[in-house]
Amino acid sequence: MSGPVYDRVALIGLGLIAGSMAHAMREKGLAREVVGHARSAETRAVAREIGLVDRVTECAAEAVEGADLIVLAVPVGAMEEVAREIAPRLKGGATVTDVGSVKKAVIDGVAPHLPEGVHFVPAHPLAGTEHSGPRSGFASLFRNRWCILVPNGADRAAVDRLADLWRGMGANVDEMDADHHDLVLAVTSHTPHLIAYTMVGVADDLRRVTDSEVIKYSAAGFRDFTRIAASDPTMWRDVFLTNKDATLEILGRFTEELFALQRAIRTGDGDHLHAYFTRTRAIRRGIIEAGQDTEAPDFGRAGVTR
Amino acid sequence: MSGPVYDRVALIGLGLIAGSMAHAMREKGLAREVVGHARSAETRAVAREIGLVDRVTECAAEAVEGADLIVLAVPVGAMEEVAREIAPRLKGGATVTDVGSVKKAVIDGVAPHLPEGVHFVPAHPLAGTEHSGPRSGFASLFRNRWCILVPNGADRAAVDRLADLWRGMGANVDEMDADHHDLVLAVTSHTPHLIAYTMVGVADDLRRVTDSEVIKYSAAGFRDFTRIAASDPTMWRDVFLTNKDATLEILGRFTEELFALQRAIRTGDGDHLHAYFTRTRAIRRGIIEAGQDTEAPDFGRAGVTR
Ligand SMILES: NC(=O)c1ccc[n+]([C@@H]2O[C@H](COP(=O)([O-])OP(=O)(O)OC[C@H]3O[C@@H](n4cnc5c(N)ncnc54)[C@H](OP(=O)(O)O)[C@@H]3O)[C@@H](O)[C@H]2O)c1
Ligand SMILES: NC(=O)c1ccc[n+]([C@@H]2O[C@H](COP(=O)([O-])OP(=O)(O)OC[C@H]3O[C@@H](n4cnc5c(N)ncnc54)[C@H](OP(=O)(O)O)[C@@H]3O)[C@@H](O)[C@H]2O)c1
Repeated sequence: MSGPVYDRVALIGLGLIAGSMAHAMREKGLAREVVGHARSAETRAVAREIGLVDRVTECAAEAVEGADLIVLAVPVGAMEEVAREIAPRLKGGATVTDVGSVKKAVIDGVAPHLPEGVHFVPAHPLAGTEHSGPRSGFASLFRNRWCILVPNGADRAAVDRLADLWRGMGANVDEMDADHHDLVLAVTSHTPHLIAYTMVGVADDLRRVTDSEVIKYSAAGFRDFTRIAASDPTMWRDVFLTNKDATLEILGRFTEELFALQRAIRTGDGDHLHAYFTRTRAIRRGIIEAGQDTEAPDFGRAGVTR
Repeated sequence: MSGPVYDRVALIGLGLIAGSMAHAMREKGLAREVVGHARSAETRAVAREIGLVDRVTECAAEAVEGADLIVLAVPVGAMEEVAREIAPRLKGGATVTDVGSVKKAVIDGVAPHLPEGVHFVPAHPLAGTEHSGPRSGFASLFRNRWCILVPNGADRAAVDRLADLWRGMGANVDEMDADHHDLVLAVTSHTPHLIAYTMVGVADDLRRVTDSEVIKYSAAGFRDFTRIAASDPTMWRDVFLTNKDATLEILGRFTEELFALQRAIRTGDGDHLHAYFTRTRAIRRGIIEAGQDTEAPDFGRAGVTR
């Protein structure tokens, strides 16, 4: 990398994603100065204590003043409110971006508030963990993961510069339109999360199988679900409320398939089950070949817990 | 450990579980001799090539001759057939056990074929990976995992001896009755697997989201599902066919909850979603405290692939 991509970057929200960006930008020298703001005094105090950014401001509008890049890193449902608050203080020629997991709703909420002469380049890094808050970020979060930009007609130079920042943080960059992004993510992330939450809720509800047994005997499968279902409730509430149509569509397809498998179990149709389970293996092979996961059994957790 | 627990152990089936037992027994000196058989010439050849066991036999009946412990490590649906085949050659006083993921169906299938004077102690190690076959086993698979014994009225000394073997291989041992085992596993493993298979099948079906996009952008959530859905089709077909009642019961509860969440999304009931997602976090904390998983974000995969 040859010097900073932006002079001053303002992070609004100081959780997992913003924190990881702060660590990564610092490690790679991608910004001359990183300013940050979070709504709660507690998060701001932690950010100061651990030196997460160069300067923590008391309000969002203050943070964006003079910034070349403004990153909205709050739950999707809070984006519009934040955009309204910072809009009057944005520098002409600055770029506003976000990291929200849904893109259409963010564009609809944010774009109308931004003044002429400010570029808006929505983005979504496909990287995360089940942890949240100002202490949860780490510099390598985005390494070898995808970041999807949704330029939506934005200025080409502004888009390319943001792409440089994401590449600098280790991500691979791709572009997509908002609707397609929301559908792809409904399949690869949003619906799987809802299903995991549901299954863990069912286990929690079952009185004959006590909680302690569910916990004690949680094997692969359920254990993975519990990790997914430990993600931040506010973030996920907002994802489902704002990516409603795509999620409901995929959920409809899911229930249809599930009912077919359920009927096969009830009628003892082993051939149907076997054929279905064989087909799904191919996707897994593709993911490993694409380098999105390791083939080590059980993710090499053998070395971690066993 | 003070010497072998069994003199001669016969493994019928030489896949992930039997192979891991062979490695673990050898590493800890738990058996004086381990004999093995698998139905296909190919598996037997691989087992010989890698020296998985001390001796590979051409038929199952031959393997069990003179054995003190016989381990049935084939898919649940094949257990009865194998029991019928080996029954005439079992040594008086020998113990027959299995490692099947379902217990009631295995007991119903196997017990009637075993002669008087042979002990039957069903078991289920709660450990596995998505890989299978004679090359997939490793000695540490059972370390710190649970093995559930379902004594079903068997001789106490025979049960205790089998428990010693499992402890010797690193497992924690517990006892349960068959029906309860099958219900607990329907919750913690079988239904989650069915759901993961379903979701991956839905993704595979969707024509607007091409396979390559699903693979390319598979993030946490879906990626975990694909791993689960890469498990052996025959094993899982048999699990669902033989644990039908418990699986259908839990599936019914699952769909009920899923419909409630789906309605909350449709009507925009964010409070319902938020409350549900908050409740499921507690189970995750329990699992980490119980040592069944690590708190490292994303299972510490950061260090593996990122
Ligand atoms: N986590 C993931 O896996 C992941 C992956 C990709 C994209 N994303 C997206 O990234 C964004 C941030 O997620 P995150 O994981 O970084 O979340 P996080 O760790 O929970 O941090 C969220 C931040 O937003 C602030 N915030 C919450 N509600 C707010 C409101 N109503 N108004 C103003 N600020 C508010 C919080 O402030 P306080 O700390 O003061 O409460 C906190 O600083 C979300 O849009 C999410 O969809 C997340
Ligand atoms: N994998 C897991 O996560 C896991 C965890 C706990 C318990 N279990 C249980 O352990 C048992 C074995 O599973 P595994 O993972 O070790 O499977 P695996 O790796 O696929 O091995 C299965 C073995 O059974 C043999 N086999 C398959 N169908 C047979 C049939 N119809 N008749 C006779 N032998 C047959 C195979 O022989 P060939 O190689 O010659 O085909 C192979 O040696 C199953 O009952 C399963 O429910 C599995």
